[in-house]
Amino acid sequence: MSDRIVLAYSGGLDTSVCIGWLTEETGQEVVAVAVDVGQGGEDMELIRQRALDCGAVESVVVDAKDEFAEDFCLPALRANALYMDRYPLVSALSRPLIVRHLAEAAREHGATVVSHGCTGKGNDQVRFEVGIANLAPDLKVIAPVRDYAWTREKAIAYAEEKGLPINQSKKSPYSIDQNVWGRAVETGFLEDIWNGPIEDVYDYTADPTVQREADEVTISFEAGVPVAIDGTRVSVLEAIQQLNTRAGGQGVGRLDMVEDRLVGIKSREVYEAPGAIALITAHMELENVTIERELARYKRGVDQRWGELVYDGQWFSPLKRALDTFIDEAQSAVTGEIRMTLHGGRATVTGRRSGTSLYDFNLATYDEGDSFDQSQARGFIEIYGMSSKLAARRDELSTGRPSGARS
Amino acid sequence: MSDRIVLAYSGGLDTSVCIGWLTEETGQEVVAVAVDVGQGGEDMELIRQRALDCGAVESVVVDAKDEFAEDFCLPALRANALYMDRYPLVSALSRPLIVRHLAEAAREHGATVVSHGCTGKGNDQVRFEVGIANLAPDLKVIAPVRDYAWTREKAIAYAEEKGLPINQSKKSPYSIDQNVWGRAVETGFLEDIWNGPIEDVYDYTADPTVQREADEVTISFEAGVPVAIDGTRVSVLEAIQQLNTRAGGQGVGRLDMVEDRLVGIKSREVYEAPGAIALITAHMELENVTIERELARYKRGVDQRWGELVYDGQWFSPLKRALDTFIDEAQSAVTGEIRMTLHGGRATVTGRRSGTSLYDFNLATYDEGDSFDQSQARGFIEIYGMSSKLAARRDELSTGRPSGARS
Amino acid sequence: MSDRIVLAYSGGLDTSVCIGWLTEETGQEVVAVAVDVGQGGEDMELIRQRALDCGAVESVVVDAKDEFAEDFCLPALRANALYMDRYPLVSALSRPLIVRHLAEAAREHGATVVSHGCTGKGNDQVRFEVGIANLAPDLKVIAPVRDYAWTREKAIAYAEEKGLPINQSKKSPYSIDQNVWGRAVETGFLEDIWNGPIEDVYDYTADPTVQREADEVTISFEAGVPVAIDGTRVSVLEAIQQLNTRAGGQGVGRLDMVEDRLVGIKSREVYEAPGAIALITAHMELENVTIERELARYKRGVDQRWGELVYDGQWFSPLKRALDTFIDEAQSAVTGEIRMTLHGGRATVTGRRSGTSLYDFNLATYDEGDSFDQSQARGFIEIYGMSSKLAARRDELSTGRPSGARS
Amino acid sequence: MSDRIVLAYSGGLDTSVCIGWLTEETGQEVVAVAVDVGQGGEDMELIRQRALDCGAVESVVVDAKDEFAEDFCLPALRANALYMDRYPLVSALSRPLIVRHLAEAAREHGATVVSHGCTGKGNDQVRFEVGIANLAPDLKVIAPVRDYAWTREKAIAYAEEKGLPINQSKKSPYSIDQNVWGRAVETGFLEDIWNGPIEDVYDYTADPTVQREADEVTISFEAGVPVAIDGTRVSVLEAIQQLNTRAGGQGVGRLDMVEDRLVGIKSREVYEAPGAIALITAHMELENVTIERELARYKRGVDQRWGELVYDGQWFSPLKRALDTFIDEAQSAVTGEIRMTLHGGRATVTGRRSGTSLYDFNLATYDEGDSFDQSQARGFIEIYGMSSKLAARRDELSTGRPSGARS
Repeated sequence: MSDRIVLAYSGGLDTSVCIGWLTEETGQEVVAVAVDVGQGGEDMELIRQRALDCGAVESVVVDAKDEFAEDFCLPALRANALYMDRYPLVSALSRPLIVRHLAEAAREHGATVVSHGCTGKGNDQVRFEVGIANLAPDLKVIAPVRDYAWTREKAIAYAEEKGLPINQSKKSPYSIDQNVWGRAVETGFLEDIWNGPIEDVYDYTADPTVQREADEVTISFEAGVPVAIDGTRVSVLEAIQQLNTRAGGQGVGRLDMVEDRLVGIKSREVYEAPGAIALITAHMELENVTIERELARYKRGVDQRWGELVYDGQWFSPLKRALDTFIDEAQSAVTGEIRMTLHGGRATVTGRRSGTSLYDFNLATYDEGDSFDQSQARGFIEIYGMSSKLAARRDELSTGRPSGARS
Repeated sequence: MSDRIVLAYSGGLDTSVCIGWLTEETGQEVVAVAVDVGQGGEDMELIRQRALDCGAVESVVVDAKDEFAEDFCLPALRANALYMDRYPLVSALSRPLIVRHLAEAAREHGATVVSHGCTGKGNDQVRFEVGIANLAPDLKVIAPVRDYAWTREKAIAYAEEKGLPINQSKKSPYSIDQNVWGRAVETGFLEDIWNGPIEDVYDYTADPTVQREADEVTISFEAGVPVAIDGTRVSVLEAIQQLNTRAGGQGVGRLDMVEDRLVGIKSREVYEAPGAIALITAHMELENVTIERELARYKRGVDQRWGELVYDGQWFSPLKRALDTFIDEAQSAVTGEIRMTLHGGRATVTGRRSGTSLYDFNLATYDEGDSFDQSQARGFIEIYGMSSKLAARRDELSTGRPSGARS
Repeated sequence: MSDRIVLAYSGGLDTSVCIGWLTEETGQEVVAVAVDVGQGGEDMELIRQRALDCGAVESVVVDAKDEFAEDFCLPALRANALYMDRYPLVSALSRPLIVRHLAEAAREHGATVVSHGCTGKGNDQVRFEVGIANLAPDLKVIAPVRDYAWTREKAIAYAEEKGLPINQSKKSPYSIDQNVWGRAVETGFLEDIWNGPIEDVYDYTADPTVQREADEVTISFEAGVPVAIDGTRVSVLEAIQQLNTRAGGQGVGRLDMVEDRLVGIKSREVYEAPGAIALITAHMELENVTIERELARYKRGVDQRWGELVYDGQWFSPLKRALDTFIDEAQSAVTGEIRMTLHGGRATVTGRRSGTSLYDFNLATYDEGDSFDQSQARGFIEIYGMSSKLAARRDELSTGRPSGARS
Repeated sequence: MSDRIVLAYSGGLDTSVCIGWLTEETGQEVVAVAVDVGQGGEDMELIRQRALDCGAVESVVVDAKDEFAEDFCLPALRANALYMDRYPLVSALSRPLIVRHLAEAAREHGATVVSHGCTGKGNDQVRFEVGIANLAPDLKVIAPVRDYAWTREKAIAYAEEKGLPINQSKKSPYSIDQNVWGRAVETGFLEDIWNGPIEDVYDYTADPTVQREADEVTISFEAGVPVAIDGTRVSVLEAIQQLNTRAGGQGVGRLDMVEDRLVGIKSREVYEAPGAIALITAHMELENVTIERELARYKRGVDQRWGELVYDGQWFSPLKRALDTFIDEAQSAVTGEIRMTLHGGRATVTGRRSGTSLYDFNLATYDEGDSFDQSQARGFIEIYGMSSKLAARRDELSTGRPSGARS
């Protein structure tokens, strides 16, 4: 059972062809592992069988949708993870989950090598390989597309030559990665960054410009976890799925950006993430209501670094784990309900309600009878402004006028 | 000419009443200073005359719209300033400008005291007084509403008693502050944070749910400064004004949030800032195209701190000035054009074009013939992942499994 | 038993006088609470009795030395807490502990008011009152020295008039606060910041310029906790005490600095903290050996913020608690031994040994036979340097030369 | 004149051998460039001649000591640059200077390739190559030691075979890099991190344990630049050199640490940097006196990131340049004098004097007649503590006790 190769298997042309090629090239048996993260498309059982038909010695299919939602999407939600303030880390979240299953399968099936189908210019190769290095540091990695320059053309020729059961009728113009948290689209005409996306690019979201009735939804959170929608208890997976449908139906969650890749180049990306964007929008506002100011300010920096680390393939790194503990602690009081209107491509918060709210009507109101003691303000301002005032006075003494003043 | 009081004069009831009251209370002459920051409403000449009618010894009106746009809104744009990731600092930007004019008027008119009409529970009192402390550290401040508990009722009674020329027919239910960068609304029923805003609250923006034709706009920037709209050169003020009209006409820029005040409480705020939001959205994407990754990542933290400082009334502080130099340097290559669609409450970037772009089609394309050398990736990943891999191996040795692995 | 006042009692003149004065002024009974944080000096039983003699209805003495070491000094050590890179937070650590005991005493003895003897221009008033606000938000605070302008002269006169049992023979020129973590000294001649401290100022440390034998010590840590000295198990308190003696005996831990107070002014401070400095020096180097690079880099920022928050009186704040969880996680592998030489005012690390070390001789050695694969470096550098290289090339294209180059 | 190679030439065995080998291997002429950064040792003219004797077509020697001090050491001083809070970036500072001269020589002598003698496991290869990529992005790099596995043994054999004029009598056990800012030592027995350094390792510093007279020095700064020592004007280079002698003579500036390399491993390093440590110590304290609190707090983070970037070979990167502007602005008032005692391995500040001091005796003094208005403190504390107090009260309501309280 030793010296097997565990292959991250998608069911598509590239990784199907890999099975036979890896066996030939290395003399090692290939174990195919396909992970269902809610990408939709083909039946997983078909995929499992195809790997066997292509020569895999074992073919494993894992329904990881709940695991993905709870262990990967949820931490991202609690971190309000938006890389470059925009991208909710769709692919970056699924890679470490797949890595986890590859590492476990390698242990179980006695493999010493892991293989994946990523190219050498993207982020995913890094996420796979750094993930493997962190979870199973002694496994080796083979990436045929990158290390042996497998092209699509070579793959098609190989499949025909070997009579592999792959239908490769017509190449889609889109390169797509999708899961329950969202969908990423790359395609030739979008590589010209002056071109806008066309409607055909989208699948998770309806056209936001079409007139339709607004949809009002109330999302309940407990300690930063979405637990109910419109009063009905849901799992995290169900929350995402239902909001994919409802927010997606209103055109919410389309993103189009130029993005900084880990490998040092900029790329153009189009994403759809209706559920993710609706949930993050709601969660951020509930944090506004329930998190103390200084914690909230610091958490923005933590959230940013968390998103960068996960984007950069460091899911299993020591820093990521330490940031997780910070975020967990910060979520303890993020409990309550957010009412939103989903409509016309927008997810708009219209109400918040929380038993752990820090909003205090009696302090905040401008009505009479408020409980805020305004007489404290003068002393506060005097001492709060002291250090910059002393600097201004010093500058006035040494330069003739305070630094902020116009000459 | 000594011992005068310079009053920040709005033309409204509170500050009109202050003129006489301050004179009586202190025996000092009052110089009224009204600053036009694009708040609209009454003619500034009417306001100037009213101050005189109410007893001011001098009444100064300053058209500061261009100054406001260039010296205050523009730095905010270059910092992508969104307090709590939402609020583009509408009032927080105008206060230091008013302070500048108060300080200069005090010098010119020989005043030793400055007065403003803010309450003791808001941010603006801090912005006024810390600003004064920084620009003219020896001036004293009187804030009658806060320090002498002037209520609206007292003010009306005083105005009637003195026969002041103020029409206070019907109290508006809304407390509003507006300028060319945006508009802030507070009102009783929004103090219940479960209540959503009603259409009546808004003035700068049309209802986004009404069907209308989309508006496509192209904004040109030079070194982070908006210089043209649809190819026609504009001043910063014109850029903001035109986008207020065009983005506002599409319902862009409505904000509704619970906000952390500097005085330690949370408050509910509704804002409209169509031009600001359209410009910041465009500017952020142009930064994505033209700013190097590590600079861009660090700048997010700088931008956040800049926004907090300005929100917190520290416009003239040493740290704010040092952050400005960082941001200036970071803007040097932020030159190019952004095409956006304004529609249905959304400002959506659809194209970017820049002579200083860092997006390199030849490196990024997945077409054949790209210039990215994929053979470098393996070495990169090996060394990039080294430190977390060594930590994982250490943990495996000391605990039996890598820290990231499931038990 | 209601409406009592709990007084933070030091046994000194000011707080002794407070007992009677508070009773007279408010009609409430005073409960004196004295906390032993290792300040040395008088026997705590004498202090307890003096409070009763001065009119306290109850007098409580708490031996909190172990609690102080474990709950307050230890977190500071794990955070390498050095405010402004220098000051190990001596007084800032004891205040929240005292607050904890005041709040608990208030609950136990039915008090509604807390009183302390701090002035109105220092940090300690803030630490006491914000601490009380966080632990017992409904208690009121009276600070007679600040709020009623009690001067030393008034206090002496009051004590004589009432025949209070306080010997106030001769005023020491030094204002001192000390505990097991260190000692702070303020005094008139040091308020001229050009003056250097004289030997008489110091008590915890011997003159470092006197010749003596060096002292070699080995400190063992488990998960960031000092657990043994020279192989003998110690409690945290014992570790600090023994190092106070040994490092203090070598003149280690003297500090002299201008410091930024929370109340906005700068002050001159002289400290001694031999045990704290020796422990932090050892701990930092053990972190260098056992903490992964990116976690270590981020932790420096967390440590800085932690120190600022604690200095600023925010021990019990939500952000401080969240930073604690980060630091706890980061300490999990900080286990091993540090050998130091204590001599001539210096604590110098000379050796480190750890079962959880990340230092890998086989990777690091420049001897032959190392396990570092140098062939990876080229690819690493190419991709690691990509983003700044693209920026340089862009600048060359648009300006004629790369931005870093000389003109 | 085309297709030449510019070689970073040290005069030592490795790079001397490179000259002939590169010529043979590539058919290109070699231009040797040796840069004097104050490393001492051989006469630069000898080094220049040796390159010619070894076959260089041109041999250039640059006296860059002043340039190094002013353009590289000075920014490091103003950033208080201490990587991992310890290491003043000795080698990391000289590499970009050498790169600058290599790039300029390549332009002048028509070279298309640059060569250096670094190994593949250190930081310097990255600093050279990323530097070149930033200053002259089209140059190629050859690193024979790394890319062609040149060992010392091969080099000696090659030198003997070709009769090159290199005396390689006895290998020093130490691998040393030194310049005017400091000296780095690596050696076999120190690769066991439990071993302490021996006296023989040091050259810039005398044994601090030897008894000698203390040396008092006063350093004057103008806007963060050291301009005088004991009242005599000095250049930056002279300031460093004089303090190397005087602080070095007192054993100041020895460092021994485990360090995080950019290539992901930890290494043991011993440094000496007497002038650098003395200057940074003085500069930090002058900043304490002259920089406003919030700017000072933020600058610590900027300084840390600056040091990491420079350590990581990003001297010419966009982020480094933007941080420079921040630091420049922050230095504007860092003017004054620091008096220090150099003795027994310690550089101890004993006095500060500044015309731009923010220390205000009248505010700080505890004597009577101070100008601090203590009555402001109560209001300050109330509002300053508000947000955490509200959080504590919320926690008490929802959990039964404030979060900070013990159960």
